[in-house]
Amino acid sequence: MEKTLGIGLAGFGTVGTGVWETLERNLELILKRTGVEVEIKRIAVRDPKKARLKDVPTEAFTTDWLEVVNDPDVDIVVELIGGTTTAFDIVASALSAGKPVVTGNKALLAERGKELFSLSLEKDTPIHFEAAVAGGIPIIKTVQDSFVGNQIESMAGIINGTSNYILQRMTEAGLGYEEALGEAQQLGYAEADPTLDVNGWDAAHKAILLATLAYGFIIDPTKVYVRGIERVRSTDIEFAKRLGFVVKLLCVVREHEDGTIELRTQPSFIPGSHVLASVNGVFNAVAVIGDAAGESLFYGRGAGKDPTASSVVADIVEAARSVGEMKPGSHRGFLPYKDEGKIMDIEDTQTPYYVRFDVTDEPGVVAKIANELAIAGIGIAGTHSPVNADDPDADFVDMVFQLHTCRFGLLKDTLKKIEALSCVNARPVVFRIENLT
Amino acid sequence: MEKTLGIGLAGFGTVGTGVWETLERNLELILKRTGVEVEIKRIAVRDPKKARLKDVPTEAFTTDWLEVVNDPDVDIVVELIGGTTTAFDIVASALSAGKPVVTGNKALLAERGKELFSLSLEKDTPIHFEAAVAGGIPIIKTVQDSFVGNQIESMAGIINGTSNYILQRMTEAGLGYEEALGEAQQLGYAEADPTLDVNGWDAAHKAILLATLAYGFIIDPTKVYVRGIERVRSTDIEFAKRLGFVVKLLCVVREHEDGTIELRTQPSFIPGSHVLASVNGVFNAVAVIGDAAGESLFYGRGAGKDPTASSVVADIVEAARSVGEMKPGSHRGFLPYKDEGKIMDIEDTQTPYYVRFDVTDEPGVVAKIANELAIAGIGIAGTHSPVNADDPDADFVDMVFQLHTCRFGLLKDTLKKIEALSCVNARPVVFRIENLT
Repeated sequence: MEKTLGIGLAGFGTVGTGVWETLERNLELILKRTGVEVEIKRIAVRDPKKARLKDVPTEAFTTDWLEVVNDPDVDIVVELIGGTTTAFDIVASALSAGKPVVTGNKALLAERGKELFSLSLEKDTPIHFEAAVAGGIPIIKTVQDSFVGNQIESMAGIINGTSNYILQRMTEAGLGYEEALGEAQQLGYAEADPTLDVNGWDAAHKAILLATLAYGFIIDPTKVYVRGIERVRSTDIEFAKRLGFVVKLLCVVREHEDGTIELRTQPSFIPGSHVLASVNGVFNAVAVIGDAAGESLFYGRGAGKDPTASSVVADIVEAARSVGEMKPGSHRGFLPYKDEGKIMDIEDTQTPYYVRFDVTDEPGVVAKIANELAIAGIGIAGTHSPVNADDPDADFVDMVFQLHTCRFGLLKDTLKKIEALSCVNARPVVFRIENLT
Repeated sequence: MEKTLGIGLAGFGTVGTGVWETLERNLELILKRTGVEVEIKRIAVRDPKKARLKDVPTEAFTTDWLEVVNDPDVDIVVELIGGTTTAFDIVASALSAGKPVVTGNKALLAERGKELFSLSLEKDTPIHFEAAVAGGIPIIKTVQDSFVGNQIESMAGIINGTSNYILQRMTEAGLGYEEALGEAQQLGYAEADPTLDVNGWDAAHKAILLATLAYGFIIDPTKVYVRGIERVRSTDIEFAKRLGFVVKLLCVVREHEDGTIELRTQPSFIPGSHVLASVNGVFNAVAVIGDAAGESLFYGRGAGKDPTASSVVADIVEAARSVGEMKPGSHRGFLPYKDEGKIMDIEDTQTPYYVRFDVTDEPGVVAKIANELAIAGIGIAGTHSPVNADDPDADFVDMVFQLHTCRFGLLKDTLKKIEALSCVNARPVVFRIENLT
């Protein structure tokens, strides 16, 4: 490749700065390795007065993203502004102009992938999005290219560093949720508005993209089961420890024999001995089981300036290789290949469970609960009371049941009946116990 | 892509059978995902009478590999016979004919990469070799493509499953080396002739390929330091445990500030808390640190029929995409980009060490050894004697020294002096203690 290709950046926040710095540092190396030579030509920013890197020429900046897309010197458009409105317009305009797109915007692709991938197909122009899932971990390329000859049996991921940090601090330092969140914010691991991180949707968007890659169809986000960590209590973290588990915000993607796809994000109990249990802090990991490759695990930094820039730069090189080479129907970006697929109703999913009941401390309580479970045909693996259950001053105690695998719908119905018992004082707390093989 | 591309297999052993089965099972899926359609047209085998898969048409077989390469219906040649002579001829002939090559042959590329990559460049025809390193783990594509924007600071890998299994059994079950090797052979984890696995060279060949990918130059295998596990003794495994370490056959690749590359394979002490310490059985893992991506880890099945086939099939798809698309200087296979680089002399490498001395059980021994170390300026982190050191019947005992970081050359010279002391009865046993960050 002889021509230097022009890059247009939309957005110059943390990741954009990282991309600039990484290219500055390693441009020569990339050229030697691949023959690809790129240069950032235009950068769209909201406020051109904000302090910038001193090496970036002022004339590269504009406040009009259209200028970036339409600049004839820009061959590849990198969208890094986030959100699903202006970002959509930028990506759609670039594709329409036949300019390959690199983006790290999981929400955009999970929410509006249908329109964008259609446009990508129609315009023979790829969208690359390695940075959208798990920062510096090349999980997109792995699933899309390296595992192309595999039926993906399942994927289980810890792919939100903020939640993982908070849960870890609750586990290790015994902090409460609010306290751990505050600490994460102070350390810059959680944003001022942490909603999308702690409510599970950041992770869910990533899981939706992974499932789309693995199974080939666009997934309606409204059909996906998502629970965050906001209501995880120290009590349950303590019980988890006692029972040999760790609580992690886990995304699970699994293909069932009838072709339906199980896809859910929630705080789960995972065995303390599983390698995912030792994914700490802001690290991410995705365990993948393919029918040929078997069990694999990909681990690394799931966010942050440089790791995310690493993925953006790899995608820029990938995109650069396709500039001027695109022929109808043959670009190497991802395209959905199935019109539709079925997401399993959450009520039909099956795992073992941990259920904690807040009960009145009186004889016969366990029998009453066990009786309802027996009527429903749900097996009990064990029951546990708190270490301080004999406290004579306590009127109410926690009573934990470990339950064998059953349909989630059956469990829900049964728990409603149990909740109606006079000895049960609150809605039972449920965690799935994940079988990670 | 409309044309079905023809695959020629040279070799139809375990991996070849796996490739056939994987393509049978997932051909339709691959076509939908990528538009690539392939078919195995010719298979070269040594003995056509040997039992074959019943679905493979007999007329596909030949005993002449040249027929496979020259068959006009074969567009891509897959070399799976191993070795460095006939395999070399097959790969060279295919490249000369402009047919992309897929191979899992680490020895071939590590020993004769210079000639083959030159031919690949000259003929504008790629060699793909994901299956050559760590079976089903896509570490080649990761280093080559996903980390293309990274300076690779270091890689540390457990990439020989046979050795890893043997060391694990010695550690967990207290088996001796011979016993553990026998068990591995019985389970099919070690071949009848396990030489290349246990002497470190299988792992070293893979490490050489990883270093070539990361640093761009062909490495002379004779310059590389390689030690196997044949002389690892239970005594040292026991001491390792006591000191909080695990013994693993580890490949280390590291770029130093002056540009020299440290590249060595040996049984090492690694901290029991490091994630590599829990890579068990025949699993492989490679930890990579990139200047942008930070710490990452890639874990999975490092050998075996299906995992290796997974990588071969991914490479077949990659190769298929380049058929008829190759232009001078632009194929996407790996090519060395530096004429030469410097491999660090093993004497100049620096780590902390574990050294075990077989000494006469008499007062003053520790002082004598410590004195020699002091003269050399080598710091002592701790000394340890066996749990049963007070056995009044023992004339000789083991005395372990944990040493601070120093040049390996200095350590060697100093150990020679210590070995000459009358109280030291045998050549000291040395393990490196790896600092994995």
